[in-house]
Amino acid sequence: MKAVQQYLADHEERLLKKLETFLSLESISTDPEKTPEMEKAVRFLTDYLEEIGFTTVERRETGGHPLVYAEYKAPEPAQTALFYGHYDVQPADPYELWDSAPFDPEVRGGRLYARGASDDKGQVFMHLAVFEAMMQTEGRLPCSVKLLIEGEEEIGSKHLYPFLENNKELLEADFCLISDSGMVETGTPTIMYGLKGFTGLEVTLHGPDRDLHSGLYGGAVKNPAMAMAQLLAGMKNEDEVVTVEGFYEDVEALEDDERRLMNEAPGEDYPVSTGIPETAPEKGYTAQEHTMARPTLEVNGLFSGYQGEGTKTIIPSKATAKLTCRLVPGQDPAVIQDLLVSHIEQHTPAGVRADVRREALSAKAYKVNPDHPLIKKAAASYTEAFEKETVFVRLGGSIPVVETIDRLFGMPVVLMGFGTPEDNLHSPNESFPVSHFTKGMHALAHFYKQM
Amino acid sequence: MKAVQQYLADHEERLLKKLETFLSLESISTDPEKTPEMEKAVRFLTDYLEEIGFTTVERRETGGHPLVYAEYKAPEPAQTALFYGHYDVQPADPYELWDSAPFDPEVRGGRLYARGASDDKGQVFMHLAVFEAMMQTEGRLPCSVKLLIEGEEEIGSKHLYPFLENNKELLEADFCLISDSGMVETGTPTIMYGLKGFTGLEVTLHGPDRDLHSGLYGGAVKNPAMAMAQLLAGMKNEDEVVTVEGFYEDVEALEDDERRLMNEAPGEDYPVSTGIPETAPEKGYTAQEHTMARPTLEVNGLFSGYQGEGTKTIIPSKATAKLTCRLVPGQDPAVIQDLLVSHIEQHTPAGVRADVRREALSAKAYKVNPDHPLIKKAAASYTEAFEKETVFVRLGGSIPVVETIDRLFGMPVVLMGFGTPEDNLHSPNESFPVSHFTKGMHALAHFYKQM
Repeated sequence: MKAVQQYLADHEERLLKKLETFLSLESISTDPEKTPEMEKAVRFLTDYLEEIGFTTVERRETGGHPLVYAEYKAPEPAQTALFYGHYDVQPADPYELWDSAPFDPEVRGGRLYARGASDDKGQVFMHLAVFEAMMQTEGRLPCSVKLLIEGEEEIGSKHLYPFLENNKELLEADFCLISDSGMVETGTPTIMYGLKGFTGLEVTLHGPDRDLHSGLYGGAVKNPAMAMAQLLAGMKNEDEVVTVEGFYEDVEALEDDERRLMNEAPGEDYPVSTGIPETAPEKGYTAQEHTMARPTLEVNGLFSGYQGEGTKTIIPSKATAKLTCRLVPGQDPAVIQDLLVSHIEQHTPAGVRADVRREALSAKAYKVNPDHPLIKKAAASYTEAFEKETVFVRLGGSIPVVETIDRLFGMPVVLMGFGTPEDNLHSPNESFPVSHFTKGMHALAHFYKQM
Repeated sequence: MKAVQQYLADHEERLLKKLETFLSLESISTDPEKTPEMEKAVRFLTDYLEEIGFTTVERRETGGHPLVYAEYKAPEPAQTALFYGHYDVQPADPYELWDSAPFDPEVRGGRLYARGASDDKGQVFMHLAVFEAMMQTEGRLPCSVKLLIEGEEEIGSKHLYPFLENNKELLEADFCLISDSGMVETGTPTIMYGLKGFTGLEVTLHGPDRDLHSGLYGGAVKNPAMAMAQLLAGMKNEDEVVTVEGFYEDVEALEDDERRLMNEAPGEDYPVSTGIPETAPEKGYTAQEHTMARPTLEVNGLFSGYQGEGTKTIIPSKATAKLTCRLVPGQDPAVIQDLLVSHIEQHTPAGVRADVRREALSAKAYKVNPDHPLIKKAAASYTEAFEKETVFVRLGGSIPVVETIDRLFGMPVVLMGFGTPEDNLHSPNESFPVSHFTKGMHALAHFYKQM
């Protein structure tokens, strides 16, 4: 163990440079123009895995962006870990809000700034570096490892799910390990024992067949932008309660014990970390409770009419909103999507026509027993490396693959994430603390060693 | 008179080509990159006016886009007409919705397609062509003419107003003539005896200091896009009644006689002309009444968050709406703007901060007595040229300069417009019927002859 740590310490600078090379690749899965960059990211991974000594290293075609599959077989019988991660990242726009270019990684104030530094290329890389260190110092890994790194996580993992379903034997393992989440605060080890589910849709309200002169047609034609405002405003009341009929029907009640746990976990000071004047949780819940354990409905994008400088006196021909929900245990994403669609059908104002595009991606929420032996080992490894008690929380975000692996394979999923609330995931200036890179690798080495 | 008509007929093809040259100049006043094109439009006008024989032809600096001023003095004492028009046009985006390029004029099915064909370059050109014809055939114009053609009508005529105020003597005249409006239907001469006023503003709701991950922050942070939907939805009820306090307070009551007149005027079949499923006027009014004589509040633009392909699971950091109102006699634009601002201040949802940019442009509504002798002469000229009775209507649009000229000079303003409801003003595929070009010039010649 000492040798592994020493190796990681001796090679820290080189490993950081190697990670920066990985982060400099613009692997934005939603942008078709970035396909060549996605290819470079795949090549980076397969080259590194071969270098480390993985016996099987494969680029697997999926019909979309390829995924990387690799295997290492331990010399004597041992547990098998299935590692999952993703090499694709969110778009980086608006570029002008980044202090350094999103694909030109830069260390400032103890943090590594780059799109994907935290979500998820940085965290994937930590595992590979630990594997390298173990192979170089001990000539082997302590357990068998199957590695699955996809390129479509940020666009819904459309091709991952059939791959999982069609390769059950290939992917069989004793447990699954994922590092694609964060800690409640810098330095405090955190086990995520629950994740939210997800569903979404895009709705366009169509009015006139072209933008119209607001003077000649104002008063005759329903304004689609106003119609959209009315439709959206009708989906939530002023208490931040979603008013879509049936939305809360299957939500598992939140027990007092769990509410207490959630409020005791170190919380984020939202006005400080995000600049908002005040938090706005659902009435009857704290912001912490709402983000961890209550479903949400968010407008992710909204657009209609003229957006340029100055005034353009038009009635826009249409208005579009992108909506997503984060779901909690009990809620079925397909049912919730149906409820949203019927709500839209029933509440579209007269004078416009609604056109709904259902988001293909959806996932149920996930919860694991925090007393599972593997979870306990993960917590102990965290505490060893970070020298602090591990806390147990539920995440407001979604990792749909977790629910799928649970459902298809029935194996426990261990979420060892190393991100922090200051990482600016999906935002400009995404970053990751360099110290978590070091300590996180230590924790991972400790965890693998116990298998 | 016959000679003038013959001249116009003989030179129709050449004049149409000349108009196409004028329309091919991309004189978009709101776009700073088009300044060289604005300059070309000014040059086109000054060259043409000199060619015709105007004695004074000046390019006047304004601090913004220049305006063109020209004078013709009749050889013996005669009335003086002040002609007003504008050489700037609305932006042409979205370009992909045009069947032919907006600045590459094309005649199809008896219509000339180009941005500005109707609003207002095409109509300005008709006056110049009539002047040319009269000078060439009779060696003089029947009255003195002062010409004022500005380049900022589509962006609020900011520099025109001080010019009018500072040049009262220069601009003194017996009446003002403007062709920047339309007829109720193709072929039916129409006198606009009323125009709406105008005011507007842009409001931005600021939430978090960056786009946030919708999973990690959903439930803690007020979503600015949803806040905007709630704010806008609170400004109108489902009866299309504006709910901003005091909005209707000073509105002059609409007399039954006038309502009857409005509903008797040939109306537009909105579902056919605009593709809307049904009209949406204020409860208690017909679409015709609402567009002509009731105030409006329209969202011209709305934007927040992610607008690209696919999904981006964010809480946007802000949301912006562009709003404008069309006002009716009795309403003071400054008062209405204040009412909108207080409404926003009082109804901004908790958790976001509102930032309002007041639109500098505003104008009162205008109404003239339809029995004024000049109006009667204009009606007779229309009827002579179009061989049809002239109808009298009020316009839902605004021509703020009309109100200003009325207020500053007290001279009657005659609105002889030749556009049609099918012209797609401010929209893709703007066009103007070639027959109205011919008949309109005939009507104008007839009108000038009576002075």
